[in-house]
Amino acid sequence: MRESRIIRVAILGFGTVGRGVYDLMQRRENELEEKTGLRAQVARILVRDAGRSRDGVDQALITDRFEEILADDSIDIVVEVMGGIEPARTYITEALKSGKSVVTANKDLMAVHGGELLSLAGSMERDLLFEASVAGGIPIIRPMKQCLAGNHITEIIGIVNGTTNYILTRMTQDGMEFSDALAQATELGYAEADPTADVEGYDAGRKLAILASIAFHSRVTFDDVHTEGITKISAADIRYVKEMGCVIKLLAIARETGDGIEASVQPMLLPAAHPLASVNDVFNAVFVHGDAIDDAMFYGRGAGRYPTASACMGDIIDCMRNIHFRCMGRIGCSCYRSLPVKSMEETMQRYFLRLQVEDKPGVLACIASVMGRHGVSVKQMVQKPIQNNSAELVLISDSVREADFCDALEEFRGMDMIYEVSSLIRVYE
Amino acid sequence: MRESRIIRVAILGFGTVGRGVYDLMQRRENELEEKTGLRAQVARILVRDAGRSRDGVDQALITDRFEEILADDSIDIVVEVMGGIEPARTYITEALKSGKSVVTANKDLMAVHGGELLSLAGSMERDLLFEASVAGGIPIIRPMKQCLAGNHITEIIGIVNGTTNYILTRMTQDGMEFSDALAQATELGYAEADPTADVEGYDAGRKLAILASIAFHSRVTFDDVHTEGITKISAADIRYVKEMGCVIKLLAIARETGDGIEASVQPMLLPAAHPLASVNDVFNAVFVHGDAIDDAMFYGRGAGRYPTASACMGDIIDCMRNIHFRCMGRIGCSCYRSLPVKSMEETMQRYFLRLQVEDKPGVLACIASVMGRHGVSVKQMVQKPIQNNSAELVLISDSVREADFCDALEEFRGMDMIYEVSSLIRVYE
Repeated sequence: MRESRIIRVAILGFGTVGRGVYDLMQRRENELEEKTGLRAQVARILVRDAGRSRDGVDQALITDRFEEILADDSIDIVVEVMGGIEPARTYITEALKSGKSVVTANKDLMAVHGGELLSLAGSMERDLLFEASVAGGIPIIRPMKQCLAGNHITEIIGIVNGTTNYILTRMTQDGMEFSDALAQATELGYAEADPTADVEGYDAGRKLAILASIAFHSRVTFDDVHTEGITKISAADIRYVKEMGCVIKLLAIARETGDGIEASVQPMLLPAAHPLASVNDVFNAVFVHGDAIDDAMFYGRGAGRYPTASACMGDIIDCMRNIHFRCMGRIGCSCYRSLPVKSMEETMQRYFLRLQVEDKPGVLACIASVMGRHGVSVKQMVQKPIQNNSAELVLISDSVREADFCDALEEFRGMDMIYEVSSLIRVYE
Repeated sequence: MRESRIIRVAILGFGTVGRGVYDLMQRRENELEEKTGLRAQVARILVRDAGRSRDGVDQALITDRFEEILADDSIDIVVEVMGGIEPARTYITEALKSGKSVVTANKDLMAVHGGELLSLAGSMERDLLFEASVAGGIPIIRPMKQCLAGNHITEIIGIVNGTTNYILTRMTQDGMEFSDALAQATELGYAEADPTADVEGYDAGRKLAILASIAFHSRVTFDDVHTEGITKISAADIRYVKEMGCVIKLLAIARETGDGIEASVQPMLLPAAHPLASVNDVFNAVFVHGDAIDDAMFYGRGAGRYPTASACMGDIIDCMRNIHFRCMGRIGCSCYRSLPVKSMEETMQRYFLRLQVEDKPGVLACIASVMGRHGVSVKQMVQKPIQNNSAELVLISDSVREADFCDALEEFRGMDMIYEVSSLIRVYE
């Protein structure tokens, strides 16, 4: 026996994404039954200011009291698109406890409390779907949980923040400095008034925590992710890097190594021929390596009203199918392992290093000897005189333990012949 | 109440992909229960020659009689990886009728008889999953049926044949002629002894029929797809095209226009900046445009033992979840519309045309006048003298009805001043 009632959906939050979900629900009204076997309607919309009228939306749907939605047993699915930890966490918890399925776009919440919420959804036999929380409209969570479920996934590399990718694209293609590119991104609405979460890598770090948890079947939270932003990247770095056949991208990387999970967000040198290197402007992409599939990449718009609403709609439709077939909670938390997360110091890395040094014989020998003592091999090196007494040294190291490299760097900082460590950027390999 | 028995899987065919599925089933044995709630085992393997021993495979699993598998009620899932229309069609039909779920990698079959088989699966309330039939390991069918289900998809563009993509990549990067690149592909095992299905675009056409049916919710079969191959593409074409900032790719394109579906496979000029232009060697990619998601792309390995087996395993795991949750047939045929498929002559196209003409004043005027009479505007034109009395004319037209362009071409063929129509390639826009 299949369920056949009309599915009633409540939307929590009516900002950019909430409005997009509402619009798509209207646009697809006639097709939903063909796709899922059930009809659906938006039953309630939770807003902060219930008094304000909203273009084309029946005022009777609007409420500023979550309790009304919670108490309404006719509501099957709650779509949380408010963002932030509270009150979203409480609302989702209460919705699940009252037997509603939940769709959320909330990366902040899922990156920190995903485990607790998914476990609650599992025990209630309800769906908690969150495709929109990572990389906007790009299908990535469901492909990993289903299509790639036959793989042992060992690596995920993502360009999952559109703001920083736009800034780095402008710096690369137009030679802009960071501050000018940021100003342009702000003007175009790609960067928020306070861009910290984007430019410092926190936003990407949240998405990586979610992706890594799914890929490696072991819970990774935002706290586990080492984050570095792009504020220190200069046009000069990008010029040097280009000469070396590379680009700089803000990469969210997670690896499962034999002795634990590595998870970090940082600007990185990437060979220009790598598929991720041509992901430009506000586009996002996630690159996945598995033992059977080898390399796969998922590319598209990582933000925006309709791309994000597209992901929410896919989840709503899946919830509806599960209600129709009475199989709610069909795919829940997939973290059945418990792996340690390694500290950054333990990871192996390659580095791009730019130094201002005294221009005299023997300097390079000194630097090389310090590096050698700490186990750092130099793979590529360029020296350019700058002015009278000063030269610029640009080098790329071989793979080395981060802790050892930092020790060498510490020694550099105490050396008179080294005027400045201008930049230090990891190299993807 | 959840099902809790051990799921028994039969593999039909033990070639490249069959062996891959078997290997992956062994590799993932311990994780399957964590992922699906159920354990699974390979119960039978159907082969042509049951006498031959197979490395690491228990001889008791091997049979050359499908009837044994069909009669075995303990077998839940049949994985068909034999290829070809018969006996695969009969076996799948009988398996579904006897209540087994089916996973298939068979594009030949699904592109022609997909509708009939999915309809049977639906009426039996069983799964018929076929992710591996298009683009090997790349998740594309499930993302379209689920993640992008909130979209109205209007266009699909795929590079879905690795052999031809390898050949075109060699021609582009190394300046090879078609025959040399084909020879190299054959040597590397990327092309079959009889490469017709690949180089003539039939293989890509079958995959496009499957993709278009899913994207537009209306059945498109292989017969509906116009196919042209890459055998006539020359190194000279590729040189000219490069000068114009483009590459040539064998594109499988399907569009839903207001008055029907367009579906064709052909070599096409593509701007070098388009994400598909940098999909090289044997890699495949599918580009999807929907009203909510805008552009998205799925990239990876379109063939090979483990990539293809990866897609089959994803389907097996989904079948297992559906058995566990008693929701078999949860997502079946999604063709709920019935749209006409347009003939090629009705479509609007742009063309790249290379002509050998008499090198004298007035020739261009004559050619332009013929084109004008048939409604063809020229957007870009280069003329190069070749020898004494002859010149080469390369032009790109504006968008025009294919039938009108063909009429102009017919007139060219009757004109003395036009020695030869050297190439005619459509231009993506």
